[in-house]
Amino acid sequence: MKPIPFISGIARIFAIGALLALGVRAHAQTDPLPSWNDGPAKQAVVEFIQATTTQGSPKFVPPAERIAAFDQDGTTWVEQPLYSQVMFAFHQVGLLAKKDPKVAGAEPFKTVLSGDRAAIAKLAIKDLEKIIFATHTGMTVEAFKASVKEWIATAKDPRWNRPYTELVYQPMLEVMKYLRENGYKTYIVTGGGQDFVRVFSEQVYGIPPEQVVGSAVDTKFGYDKNGQAILTKVPKVVLIDDKAGKPAGIHLMIGRRPVAAFGNSDGDRQMLEYTQAGDGARLMMLVHHDDAEREYAYGPKSKVGTFPDTLMVEAKKNGWTVISMKNDWKRIFAWQQ
Amino acid sequence: MKPIPFISGIARIFAIGALLALGVRAHAQTDPLPSWNDGPAKQAVVEFIQATTTQGSPKFVPPAERIAAFDQDGTTWVEQPLYSQVMFAFHQVGLLAKKDPKVAGAEPFKTVLSGDRAAIAKLAIKDLEKIIFATHTGMTVEAFKASVKEWIATAKDPRWNRPYTELVYQPMLEVMKYLRENGYKTYIVTGGGQDFVRVFSEQVYGIPPEQVVGSAVDTKFGYDKNGQAILTKVPKVVLIDDKAGKPAGIHLMIGRRPVAAFGNSDGDRQMLEYTQAGDGARLMMLVHHDDAEREYAYGPKSKVGTFPDTLMVEAKKNGWTVISMKNDWKRIFAWQQ
Repeated sequence: MKPIPFISGIARIFAIGALLALGVRAHAQTDPLPSWNDGPAKQAVVEFIQATTTQGSPKFVPPAERIAAFDQDGTTWVEQPLYSQVMFAFHQVGLLAKKDPKVAGAEPFKTVLSGDRAAIAKLAIKDLEKIIFATHTGMTVEAFKASVKEWIATAKDPRWNRPYTELVYQPMLEVMKYLRENGYKTYIVTGGGQDFVRVFSEQVYGIPPEQVVGSAVDTKFGYDKNGQAILTKVPKVVLIDDKAGKPAGIHLMIGRRPVAAFGNSDGDRQMLEYTQAGDGARLMMLVHHDDAEREYAYGPKSKVGTFPDTLMVEAKKNGWTVISMKNDWKRIFAWQQ
Repeated sequence: MKPIPFISGIARIFAIGALLALGVRAHAQTDPLPSWNDGPAKQAVVEFIQATTTQGSPKFVPPAERIAAFDQDGTTWVEQPLYSQVMFAFHQVGLLAKKDPKVAGAEPFKTVLSGDRAAIAKLAIKDLEKIIFATHTGMTVEAFKASVKEWIATAKDPRWNRPYTELVYQPMLEVMKYLRENGYKTYIVTGGGQDFVRVFSEQVYGIPPEQVVGSAVDTKFGYDKNGQAILTKVPKVVLIDDKAGKPAGIHLMIGRRPVAAFGNSDGDRQMLEYTQAGDGARLMMLVHHDDAEREYAYGPKSKVGTFPDTLMVEAKKNGWTVISMKNDWKRIFAWQQ
């Protein structure tokens, strides 16, 4: 029997309603962390977000307090064999040498230009500071931004022959997105330069420049030849956003204590301690590089991203979650399958 | 004739639609700046917001770039007879003296405690720095926050006998809200201490702590007696967010150039110049205190909030809008009618 039109209309409305309801349910059941294997690390993220964002939960965190801090090098992207910002600095030394032969002949630039890896690896902190100042100061903030923009669009990692911005960890992008969808404000808190990271943070992480906290040099206000106001980067350190400097940087730039913090090395220890020392629910996670095949395996003796045994001891003692890249991550990069 | 039920239902739906449409229109026609008199200043705000947020407008600014910076003292609240943060510092000196008699006997604290206004007015910058360090450092960031919270809830301005948080300019609150409703991110960019302003910025301005840029001392990471991570404020200046320091502070903390900036004194000159030097639409405004009856009238010779004649000349030359409190503001405080 053909239903009479009126009933047919009602039935259609109900059918649409049912489909919509199913749609909502399907959405709620979609795994927000598809690149994570089931296990304690994934569970820690999911439980933390549920506990802190469910109204009436004893661990509920008001939206304004939902601050999550992510270290960058080794936590959200590859840091081996050298920090990409160091690769950028070396590239800029090459450009400087082309413009000014005196640079080419002087140390430590000469060593950088030689390409001699063993010699480069032996450069002292003082030398690196000289290289950073030479390549990161003396220009307007816009000129520096343009130089990073150009480099990041063209430079490629030696192992995978891909742009550095493709060497971000897909599982961490999923955590960031999941946090934001639940009202968290995500920040990069990096030992690297904030002016460097700010150039690509929005595109790569969905994090706007004003939510990047990092090491910074001072800027000097002045005027260009047309009398226009400009800011020039000058060789005076304002913030070394590493180790004990990370909580200080967070306080300076955000003014709130994070409730969640993600790191991967000794440089993140104090940030995780500071995060944990707040009241209520807390999430502290450390990425452990134990996957030589898909990425790198390194530990206490690495030149970058040191993860000393004492950090592992502290993580266990404090209940921090250690993420095993090998076991907890289904895939590491978006382009891996 | 009574309409048949079906038609009646249709009519009701149309009636609701018409009411909704009217509602939308009524909303669109609501004056977003009711405390402003019609005139060039109000018009400048309205035209700027319309030009920068209307899709297809030649002056359209993408949402991510919509940054507006507001000085605080004299721009969003009263700064006479003394900056309220100085009043706070003097109050804290009293508390310190109660705890430690040595403080009471030593200069410059002795002068502050004397209450002798003429002598206090003569204190040198060095003395004020001593007072600021004594009252703003040596405690955890939480303890400092608690002391500001207590003071701001109880202290009253000598002229109106009202809390300082009631001495905010209603017309500026309306501008902030209007900007935010149009996708702008509003920032306080103050010469005052950011840790001081962050305590009440959300409640008073609707601006979260992470959007307050101000002068700052360093913090030192450490542990309390229970081994918990803490940050202690230390007497080392990180940022003096005044004059040429304002653009530098904006770059450090926000990393983008504002498209709109509001100030009231010589200390805001460089922030307005820096804002103006960007491409596209720009709005630079200066609050001029010319209303002795409802607030204060002061100019080049004032000890706080100096507005030298050269600033007025530069405003005219650069096309900055000078707001006359007397003529442009219908009311100054929310409680005034």
